[in-house]
Amino acid sequence: MIEGKTTGRSRRIRLGMVGGGQDAFIGAVHRIASRIDDRYELVAGALSSTPERAARSAAAIGLDPERSYPDFQTMATAEAARADGIEAVAIVTPNHVHIPAAKAFLEAGIHVICDKPLATSLEEGRSLEEVLARSGGVFALTHNYTGYPLVRQARAMVEAGELGRIRIVQVEYPQDWLAEKIEETGHKQAEWRADPARSGAGGCIGDIGTHAFNLAEFVTAGTVREVCAEMTTFVEGRRLDDDIQILLRFDGGAKGFLWASQVAPGHENGLKIRVYGEKAAIEWVQADPNRMIFSPLGGNQEIVTRNGPGANAANKRVSRIPAGHPEGYLEGFANLYTEIADAIAAAQAGMAPPPDVIYPTLADGLRGLSFIEASIRSSKAGGVWTAI
Amino acid sequence: MIEGKTTGRSRRIRLGMVGGGQDAFIGAVHRIASRIDDRYELVAGALSSTPERAARSAAAIGLDPERSYPDFQTMATAEAARADGIEAVAIVTPNHVHIPAAKAFLEAGIHVICDKPLATSLEEGRSLEEVLARSGGVFALTHNYTGYPLVRQARAMVEAGELGRIRIVQVEYPQDWLAEKIEETGHKQAEWRADPARSGAGGCIGDIGTHAFNLAEFVTAGTVREVCAEMTTFVEGRRLDDDIQILLRFDGGAKGFLWASQVAPGHENGLKIRVYGEKAAIEWVQADPNRMIFSPLGGNQEIVTRNGPGANAANKRVSRIPAGHPEGYLEGFANLYTEIADAIAAAQAGMAPPPDVIYPTLADGLRGLSFIEASIRSSKAGGVWTAI
Amino acid sequence: MIEGKTTGRSRRIRLGMVGGGQDAFIGAVHRIASRIDDRYELVAGALSSTPERAARSAAAIGLDPERSYPDFQTMATAEAARADGIEAVAIVTPNHVHIPAAKAFLEAGIHVICDKPLATSLEEGRSLEEVLARSGGVFALTHNYTGYPLVRQARAMVEAGELGRIRIVQVEYPQDWLAEKIEETGHKQAEWRADPARSGAGGCIGDIGTHAFNLAEFVTAGTVREVCAEMTTFVEGRRLDDDIQILLRFDGGAKGFLWASQVAPGHENGLKIRVYGEKAAIEWVQADPNRMIFSPLGGNQEIVTRNGPGANAANKRVSRIPAGHPEGYLEGFANLYTEIADAIAAAQAGMAPPPDVIYPTLADGLRGLSFIEASIRSSKAGGVWTAI
Amino acid sequence: MIEGKTTGRSRRIRLGMVGGGQDAFIGAVHRIASRIDDRYELVAGALSSTPERAARSAAAIGLDPERSYPDFQTMATAEAARADGIEAVAIVTPNHVHIPAAKAFLEAGIHVICDKPLATSLEEGRSLEEVLARSGGVFALTHNYTGYPLVRQARAMVEAGELGRIRIVQVEYPQDWLAEKIEETGHKQAEWRADPARSGAGGCIGDIGTHAFNLAEFVTAGTVREVCAEMTTFVEGRRLDDDIQILLRFDGGAKGFLWASQVAPGHENGLKIRVYGEKAAIEWVQADPNRMIFSPLGGNQEIVTRNGPGANAANKRVSRIPAGHPEGYLEGFANLYTEIADAIAAAQAGMAPPPDVIYPTLADGLRGLSFIEASIRSSKAGGVWTAI
Repeated sequence: MIEGKTTGRSRRIRLGMVGGGQDAFIGAVHRIASRIDDRYELVAGALSSTPERAARSAAAIGLDPERSYPDFQTMATAEAARADGIEAVAIVTPNHVHIPAAKAFLEAGIHVICDKPLATSLEEGRSLEEVLARSGGVFALTHNYTGYPLVRQARAMVEAGELGRIRIVQVEYPQDWLAEKIEETGHKQAEWRADPARSGAGGCIGDIGTHAFNLAEFVTAGTVREVCAEMTTFVEGRRLDDDIQILLRFDGGAKGFLWASQVAPGHENGLKIRVYGEKAAIEWVQADPNRMIFSPLGGNQEIVTRNGPGANAANKRVSRIPAGHPEGYLEGFANLYTEIADAIAAAQAGMAPPPDVIYPTLADGLRGLSFIEASIRSSKAGGVWTAI
Repeated sequence: MIEGKTTGRSRRIRLGMVGGGQDAFIGAVHRIASRIDDRYELVAGALSSTPERAARSAAAIGLDPERSYPDFQTMATAEAARADGIEAVAIVTPNHVHIPAAKAFLEAGIHVICDKPLATSLEEGRSLEEVLARSGGVFALTHNYTGYPLVRQARAMVEAGELGRIRIVQVEYPQDWLAEKIEETGHKQAEWRADPARSGAGGCIGDIGTHAFNLAEFVTAGTVREVCAEMTTFVEGRRLDDDIQILLRFDGGAKGFLWASQVAPGHENGLKIRVYGEKAAIEWVQADPNRMIFSPLGGNQEIVTRNGPGANAANKRVSRIPAGHPEGYLEGFANLYTEIADAIAAAQAGMAPPPDVIYPTLADGLRGLSFIEASIRSSKAGGVWTAI
Repeated sequence: MIEGKTTGRSRRIRLGMVGGGQDAFIGAVHRIASRIDDRYELVAGALSSTPERAARSAAAIGLDPERSYPDFQTMATAEAARADGIEAVAIVTPNHVHIPAAKAFLEAGIHVICDKPLATSLEEGRSLEEVLARSGGVFALTHNYTGYPLVRQARAMVEAGELGRIRIVQVEYPQDWLAEKIEETGHKQAEWRADPARSGAGGCIGDIGTHAFNLAEFVTAGTVREVCAEMTTFVEGRRLDDDIQILLRFDGGAKGFLWASQVAPGHENGLKIRVYGEKAAIEWVQADPNRMIFSPLGGNQEIVTRNGPGANAANKRVSRIPAGHPEGYLEGFANLYTEIADAIAAAQAGMAPPPDVIYPTLADGLRGLSFIEASIRSSKAGGVWTAI
Repeated sequence: MIEGKTTGRSRRIRLGMVGGGQDAFIGAVHRIASRIDDRYELVAGALSSTPERAARSAAAIGLDPERSYPDFQTMATAEAARADGIEAVAIVTPNHVHIPAAKAFLEAGIHVICDKPLATSLEEGRSLEEVLARSGGVFALTHNYTGYPLVRQARAMVEAGELGRIRIVQVEYPQDWLAEKIEETGHKQAEWRADPARSGAGGCIGDIGTHAFNLAEFVTAGTVREVCAEMTTFVEGRRLDDDIQILLRFDGGAKGFLWASQVAPGHENGLKIRVYGEKAAIEWVQADPNRMIFSPLGGNQEIVTRNGPGANAANKRVSRIPAGHPEGYLEGFANLYTEIADAIAAAQAGMAPPPDVIYPTLADGLRGLSFIEASIRSSKAGGVWTAI
């Protein structure tokens, strides 16, 4: 119970949302994340592609009915025309809507915060580059795990050379919620994720594999050069992969492995990363995110905590409360939202964002799609090493 | 990544705050907690007893300067006079201000959310009873640990008899931040906690011992009848206790032990409770709050998770996101705020609160003060069993 | 997989055993412990008070039938008369046999290794002092937990001042095997433990409370001066305590708490000790004995392992195999046997034992009995502080 | 502290040892393992290839000097000629000696217990088949991890279908002791392991990769059909691999991954296996071997303990002491020795071994060598799927 921190703002950013109606999971997460540090005010939405559900959802969260729109295009146009129109939008739909919506808002002069994966294909994702460049707007992708304080600490330690040259990366993201074929039982979340038209060509790889991939590159500040992928669909009749096991070769010689699965009993959201260098290693597990194991070669392992005695500046910068009081998923997500608010404020002032502001961008989204496509090519060829 | 939950509201409760200016810790926590489920809007404050700091703090969090007050009495009077005045106030000051402020707001017709411990003495705490009864208002005490989903599950399991008759309770709350005499180094948080005039007669016992005590009674739905206390001040020259070790006798025959310490190296906020019944036991640790160990006699131990496959209704009711994505301290705190919002809404509608709404009340606060005073009497007498 | 260690001996000590027949638990443990480092050869036994079972048990473990005796007195006399008679005896009977047997062997010039607790009463225990002094023999009490490498490391760290002055000691030994009244179901182990005639006046306190007490004094190199005890019999009709919760005051001002229970669901053998000093703390758990948490004030917690990079000399001295390959209960027990073998060899050579040889002695046994009796007096008086 | 178990024997098997002189690690382990259940008596040895060290080592462990031999061939001949000659021999040398020594003893009518890996090449390993068949002797390979009680439980659960059809296997064995080039510093253990002439073509893969591979096939009762291997030498100038990352395809469709490393900071002996089936999963970690996580799909995770309430017959059968008292590496190793003693006793009686006796055999050794060679071929070809 050490010093506090007064988070606050002079003015909230007016935010809209596309997707995130009732029964959606991630929309509620984005809304909470946007509120935690009080940097946004949600004032408009196209919360569902079903107009009636859109209206009902808008009412449930207290939106002005006038600013509940039937679709994202209408919303972009109408809000751009208002003096008090939204300054940023959160896109939290199934994957196939990400790019069309992002384009509409960027073209309307509205900054975009988009869920991952970026698009249903690399080609589609790339089509955003020109629009974004032209708009001058901020585009952020919510690879939210990069917002955890100890993930920030890990990256800073790698950058500072505290692990020495990186040799090995082990990253995994197992879940068990798709161990049976629940997409045919009316389960909304499962349904669209199992549908190539809405998800893209990747199932498990798109949904959580890209998170693991992004985390591995983020923490190591490294680049995966080649993959050798074994992608499997264990549940009979499922149309997309539900388990991926992928060997990784990094620029610079590090070797790695990425496992993501949605059929691994006992795992709720088992994201875990381990990075081994010549001098030391780190291990971090998302389900218990307030501690990280630091293993200096030849010394005792140490337990580094969020905001604790061994916290570095990168860790403290995004911690709100004293060590020992756990922060969680929503606070990590909120850290991204706050970084993005800083970036938007800078953009509005015509300035570059402050140098310590970190958030995933379009480039990260394209890396993820390249990873998906290279892995699918590798796997379809029977498991051959394939360049990303 | 299962079903989501649309939290929301038709109308936010207008909230004020007393205390919680810059450098305070718990004020920021209350503000975030009040925002997470979007049930409150902070519109007024008397954030510091130093007028200049009050104004600066108000500006930092975006309050209307007109509604930043120099003291709580002025605020109570002014807000009560406004048509859009606050409906509730959060009191997050050092302990000696709790009761005077609570009285002022209750008498002005404003509901009160108060940090713990309730008061600097039992006598002072009791003086609130009559005022509260007369006001008809809601009074909530933020023993926030009762808001954690697995604490709710534990209590419901005990109530349902799943542990059998309770035999043993072990509760502890060790910290290490006062292992040295930092109260003389300008550390604000330490300073007032070490000062009997602002803290009351209890140091460690008031600051965290009451949390542990409240949690023990909450989870077991039990009542501690007698204590035998060993209260110690390890740091030379400190004016209040910094370590308490207390034997407990419960109504119904259970035996327990409560340890709280602020001088125990390695513990950040090590709140932990273990309850053993005739048929089973549970164990929960605040620093890793999304799991609880359930130990049925004669069977394997089980790991119950927040919102996971073994979650009961009480657990699910206050969970926001899927299992495996950790919720933390702020979400637990927010659960109290949301319960209290329901209670306030019911009161405003002239109705009783819904039956599943749970939050700590004046009665809990008085229990805590009785515990403090009985323990001090016990310890001063050299460690004799003393009735609460 | 670091360097090995050639354990061995020039000559094995000839060992006898009293108790430890079929259905006994601890006899088999002593036999394995005596073999692990190859310092003993078991050649004689009075394995059971039932002659037929004694013979059957002797045959099962390959004893020469001629050296299987019907009772300890016969064995002491006969073995003392043989040129190749036993040099040491392990007494592994119920408690009431310890002292009579120990006297018989010491008087016959045979060294004694005795299970704990020492006796059924302090008075009985003290009666051994004179016999032992006269005999000049070695008397060792198997408080086996003191044989674990990390327990040795902890004690050495305390002695070296690495924790600073000790403030707080928390020790506990919960089990659950007596949560129901199994002593009436023919369970041999439970039966004698629940019988005051064979156990003495202490139930849980004698069986495992003394282990916890011994460990607390061993690790802290401290002396408990006073106790305030709450001893309970939770299982109806049981004749001895099955749960003890005891406040401790140490010489030098440290405060502590000891909990032992045999009715705590989920605990198999949950021995755990935590020691907090002014500068640092340690935590060790018997069920996972190859690691210890070291918590320096103001630094990261560290994980010290058996024979690992942070192992001190005391830890390495009693480790056999590389770190990461777990040693367990039997190896810790064997460490005592090996220490005792060194002590016996020294005695046989007319020399003092090497200075780093550590094993519990009669003095420890008497401390344990004093602890039991003081606690019973304290508890019977309603829970008053009582000098040991 | 439940029922004990009288381990014993009517007659000890006379055992010899090849290798295991001073400074060796694994020889001491074999000797302790052979003593724990008192089924063997070590009476002869050729403990070192350096005659003087052989003699010194023999003296240190109390061998009759007459039965300390300068080399294994002399020992095989001499012991076969004695009426009281050894019945079995333990071969604990560097890998290149395994096969020549095994042949010498089998041909002399002496049973063989051999350390792993079996040989320096598959071809060399296969050359033992005919000799063994002709001899009618017992040949056991000490893949000691299969002796842990919970590994036995895991296998039995898979066999009984409690996990359903197996989908995913994750096995890893990271260490850190070769993170630097210690083989050039006079470190005996490192020296021969880094020398292809003594180790064979595999470094890390032979030393610990084969353990992980054997464990994966043992627990799943499955067969790996193909591998895709990425073998790396991270330490400059080292002649053999020090990190292997290998994708596995099992007969029956399961997919897996095997990681072994000797350059992963923080890992002492981090052997860990996770097996995921359609209905449930298990997870077991060697460093904390007395517990296993069992994860039934849709239920709470459970903690299964050695000899505890959820122990099955396979677990109990090889447990010595009550749950909660940790058994470790040496006890697991001893379980193999005891199984092998039963097999030898059966062979001596001209009978088949009891059906529940389990120990790794020549077939397992050949599997390991096939795995090494297929992996090397795969890796050398740049990482292509290769049949075992």
